[in-house]
Amino acid sequence: MPRLAYLGPEGTFTEEALRLLEPEAERLPCANVGAALAAARDGEADGAVVPLENSIEGAITTTLDEFAWGEPLLITAELLLPVRFSLLARPDTEIVHIKRVYTHPAAITQCRAFCARELPDAVVVAAPSTAAAAQEVSLPGSPYDAAIAARIAGEHYGLVELADDIGDRNDTVTRFVRVSRAGTLPEPTGSDRTSLVVFLADDHPGALLEMLTEFSVRGVNLTRIESRPTGNGIGRYFFHFDFEGHVADARVGEAISGLHRICDEVRFLGSYPRADGVAPQIKKGTADPEFAEAGDWLARIRAGRV
Amino acid sequence: MPRLAYLGPEGTFTEEALRLLEPEAERLPCANVGAALAAARDGEADGAVVPLENSIEGAITTTLDEFAWGEPLLITAELLLPVRFSLLARPDTEIVHIKRVYTHPAAITQCRAFCARELPDAVVVAAPSTAAAAQEVSLPGSPYDAAIAARIAGEHYGLVELADDIGDRNDTVTRFVRVSRAGTLPEPTGSDRTSLVVFLADDHPGALLEMLTEFSVRGVNLTRIESRPTGNGIGRYFFHFDFEGHVADARVGEAISGLHRICDEVRFLGSYPRADGVAPQIKKGTADPEFAEAGDWLARIRAGRV
Amino acid sequence: MPRLAYLGPEGTFTEEALRLLEPEAERLPCANVGAALAAARDGEADGAVVPLENSIEGAITTTLDEFAWGEPLLITAELLLPVRFSLLARPDTEIVHIKRVYTHPAAITQCRAFCARELPDAVVVAAPSTAAAAQEVSLPGSPYDAAIAARIAGEHYGLVELADDIGDRNDTVTRFVRVSRAGTLPEPTGSDRTSLVVFLADDHPGALLEMLTEFSVRGVNLTRIESRPTGNGIGRYFFHFDFEGHVADARVGEAISGLHRICDEVRFLGSYPRADGVAPQIKKGTADPEFAEAGDWLARIRAGRV
Amino acid sequence: MPRLAYLGPEGTFTEEALRLLEPEAERLPCANVGAALAAARDGEADGAVVPLENSIEGAITTTLDEFAWGEPLLITAELLLPVRFSLLARPDTEIVHIKRVYTHPAAITQCRAFCARELPDAVVVAAPSTAAAAQEVSLPGSPYDAAIAARIAGEHYGLVELADDIGDRNDTVTRFVRVSRAGTLPEPTGSDRTSLVVFLADDHPGALLEMLTEFSVRGVNLTRIESRPTGNGIGRYFFHFDFEGHVADARVGEAISGLHRICDEVRFLGSYPRADGVAPQIKKGTADPEFAEAGDWLARIRAGRV
Repeated sequence: MPRLAYLGPEGTFTEEALRLLEPEAERLPCANVGAALAAARDGEADGAVVPLENSIEGAITTTLDEFAWGEPLLITAELLLPVRFSLLARPDTEIVHIKRVYTHPAAITQCRAFCARELPDAVVVAAPSTAAAAQEVSLPGSPYDAAIAARIAGEHYGLVELADDIGDRNDTVTRFVRVSRAGTLPEPTGSDRTSLVVFLADDHPGALLEMLTEFSVRGVNLTRIESRPTGNGIGRYFFHFDFEGHVADARVGEAISGLHRICDEVRFLGSYPRADGVAPQIKKGTADPEFAEAGDWLARIRAGRV
Repeated sequence: MPRLAYLGPEGTFTEEALRLLEPEAERLPCANVGAALAAARDGEADGAVVPLENSIEGAITTTLDEFAWGEPLLITAELLLPVRFSLLARPDTEIVHIKRVYTHPAAITQCRAFCARELPDAVVVAAPSTAAAAQEVSLPGSPYDAAIAARIAGEHYGLVELADDIGDRNDTVTRFVRVSRAGTLPEPTGSDRTSLVVFLADDHPGALLEMLTEFSVRGVNLTRIESRPTGNGIGRYFFHFDFEGHVADARVGEAISGLHRICDEVRFLGSYPRADGVAPQIKKGTADPEFAEAGDWLARIRAGRV
Repeated sequence: MPRLAYLGPEGTFTEEALRLLEPEAERLPCANVGAALAAARDGEADGAVVPLENSIEGAITTTLDEFAWGEPLLITAELLLPVRFSLLARPDTEIVHIKRVYTHPAAITQCRAFCARELPDAVVVAAPSTAAAAQEVSLPGSPYDAAIAARIAGEHYGLVELADDIGDRNDTVTRFVRVSRAGTLPEPTGSDRTSLVVFLADDHPGALLEMLTEFSVRGVNLTRIESRPTGNGIGRYFFHFDFEGHVADARVGEAISGLHRICDEVRFLGSYPRADGVAPQIKKGTADPEFAEAGDWLARIRAGRV
Repeated sequence: MPRLAYLGPEGTFTEEALRLLEPEAERLPCANVGAALAAARDGEADGAVVPLENSIEGAITTTLDEFAWGEPLLITAELLLPVRFSLLARPDTEIVHIKRVYTHPAAITQCRAFCARELPDAVVVAAPSTAAAAQEVSLPGSPYDAAIAARIAGEHYGLVELADDIGDRNDTVTRFVRVSRAGTLPEPTGSDRTSLVVFLADDHPGALLEMLTEFSVRGVNLTRIESRPTGNGIGRYFFHFDFEGHVADARVGEAISGLHRICDEVRFLGSYPRADGVAPQIKKGTADPEFAEAGDWLARIRAGRV
């Protein structure tokens, strides 16, 4: 039974994701993304589950930066989890008496309409995580009257659900990934995604276009690009790429070898089954048998047989 | 004397930026980026100053999303402000007694080494802004013993500076912009930057490459690209672009008209002098006189004069 | 009634093309392509008809080079003429007695199978044109027994057609163009072609890719590219381009202005109706109304109205 | 001692090229390019020397088409030969009595100024080759008074040189190649050229741009591109490419494998030392050791070692 670290405390959406990804796993809640990944790195856990991006908030930059700068880990699975916020309070709290609400800034943004309509006089205060907000609210003497968090957090901390699904949109999704230490990669499934971090060799005009051309010329479709600051002043960035296919695919291998040749550093973050099961459209000339046949042809002509 | 809204409360780095950009302006502190921009939009203020990105933390996504989705505003100036964090406390507080530190998550990240070394037993709690942290600490009965914030915040709220320049790096920079309602653009200076938001017409493979080609073919160099989720599920993004040049430049005009034609929506965010004063390298054939000459030539051949 | 020079003598395929393009025109046969174009240039004729390319032989390089280096002329029409070769001889000649055949090298190539089969012992000698071959054969005392030429040439010179349609392929086509001195261009018809000559500014690696990108980024499809030596040593070329659309089209105008800006010289050869009547596929964002709308948008944002 | 076929008769510039390329070889003159190549193919000769392009006239299309459609041969060497034309006549001929000049059309073009100035009343007639012209003039009873050809042709056929170096330009160069049947390729020298013929899979807009991108993305610089008709009507072309590097180079191998995957047919014509000895500029990331290192890296990450 694997032991998986995750962004805790108990009751986070990340815990929900972990339970769906690995129902049997032993769960190790950690204070933040960095701690969860550290547990995976140092062997305290067999891996970790962390959020990567949210369909409203965008990238979880802490996760991106940990993947880019920390000891390398491999993404081995992803999960898309619909996000449902609940208004949670201590038993006996009435909604009309709520004056101070505690939650993560992302939830503040996503529940703005509900708060304006149902809690017009309440102050909403930023918490480090939605589960931490629920935990705080559960403490006797907390200055906060309610938390906005996952229902699961209410269950953990003995809170009552005063309102369910209070987000402005009901199609918000968070993407989580499971990571583990380097080792065997997941087998290709025909519907895979690969993630990379790329540091430019030198930040000349057109460098990004060159990188994208390495993908497009081999028919590899990007699904996500994120720029992140290198830390060396404004105007210096590195890139996270997600794209279709598995590193075992010939077209993917050639594309990322091309990046590796022209860039300062390419860090491979993993190839893993896509959560949405979408199969890539393979451009004519870029399937594995076509690469193999071209390799045979090249060997023949190099031997002078034409 | 213009009246400018800014990300308050008094004492934020944003206030510092505003004072540098517009020393004479009347200052209107606002609770958050959205409120500052709203004040600029509805006429309560003549404009606003807000942070856009940080060399460590990356984009200020609230600002990006406000620019993309809110009522249009124009960026008219930018400023690069070195970030110096101070440890601030109520008078008579000794550093050894600090158990709870309050500050913005970005400051938590950036002062990690100092906290680990000097405040190993203290809990560091996330605040909505560094100035809000200072304000909270200044209140009698605050549960927090110290704030990490700009020195200016300590002066505002009567706090004492226990330590100066406590960031892990001393070259951290935040980029601020001044915005105003639509109207006259700043004149081209020869060292300008232009900012856009672009929504794809349809998210086909190669769409990003096509957008970058619209820039490169006219010799327009990107200085920043940020992807942001459209909100419609994982895998749907729009883009922020910063690039060299002024919309009055022929090459910039043609490039962004090209984007406008092939994309669903292009929102112009402004052309304004670069804070770093760097002049663009103008590729052969893309200077204004060359565009003008080509236009004359085209008119001649369209008239049958060859 | 216009007077048109053409590649003579009477009886050439070019005469056939001229009769189809301008049945009413007065015809002025010339000794070669250069002479026909000179007649058009100096006013002796109102224009000229010359061959441009053949589906077997490829470009008529004399025509290409005249268009590139001579006094500028405008192509105003094109025609695709199926090429049918006949074996022509003086009356009373029997096929078994033919020992020497005279014709243009292109016809030698294209009638190879017929000659090998039907005239195995005959020598085939290169003539300056098929009609000149017929003319020579018609002379008393000619060393040649037969010519391979157009049937029309036989009629002109009093020869008998011994065999018809003797080409190896029966789908060979020659493309002819009518040119005139600079003046009014043909109106756009919705199915037009434009021809250019482009001299590179400097022959750096990637120069051709850059030129093609100027077309592709505006959705302008090439239909033909020919490289020709500049005369300054091996390895220095200039280019002929044919592409879809009319110079009056916004996308064409912008594309060729782009070429004009980055190249040493762009010579406009004309916009004229396509002989095959094929309408271009217009890529999203590149139709005239889309250019016009983008121009309006650009004017608005340049005026600060967003 | 190898036996090499060449474009005869004796006295052609091709013979001159052959003597320079292979001074010791036995020489087999052939009536035309096709016959010379046939001799190389069927074993009558060990190889052949034929002209490929001329700095004034451009491609020798017969050679290009033979290479594209005939039984495959390998180019194993190239030579750049300055072209010097002489006016040759039978002994006792005076220049003022010359009424009919016989020569190849290319020489007609290249000696136009001399003929206009020195032979204003002479008719210049097209011959199949300059050497054939010399041979014809040497025959008693020839209708021609003089030939324009290489001095070597005059020596062969007993003609007198009436004028030397009569071309309009004195820097005209012809490029010749030596070919042989498939077998061992020449070793890479560090200054090599590779030649290919490429047939498109389908002639969609942008197909040429895609082909060029296969080269550019691997840093392979084109030195020549020629389009030739496929024979299937106007508007259908295939391409000849010459480019820097040897097929043994990793970047060249990957580029042409890419072409092979996306095109209908790629025919390898050979890798051979450049006559001009120019070494290629190798773009960062495209040298052989960089390809090897990227291959090792890819193998490591595919094995899960990151």
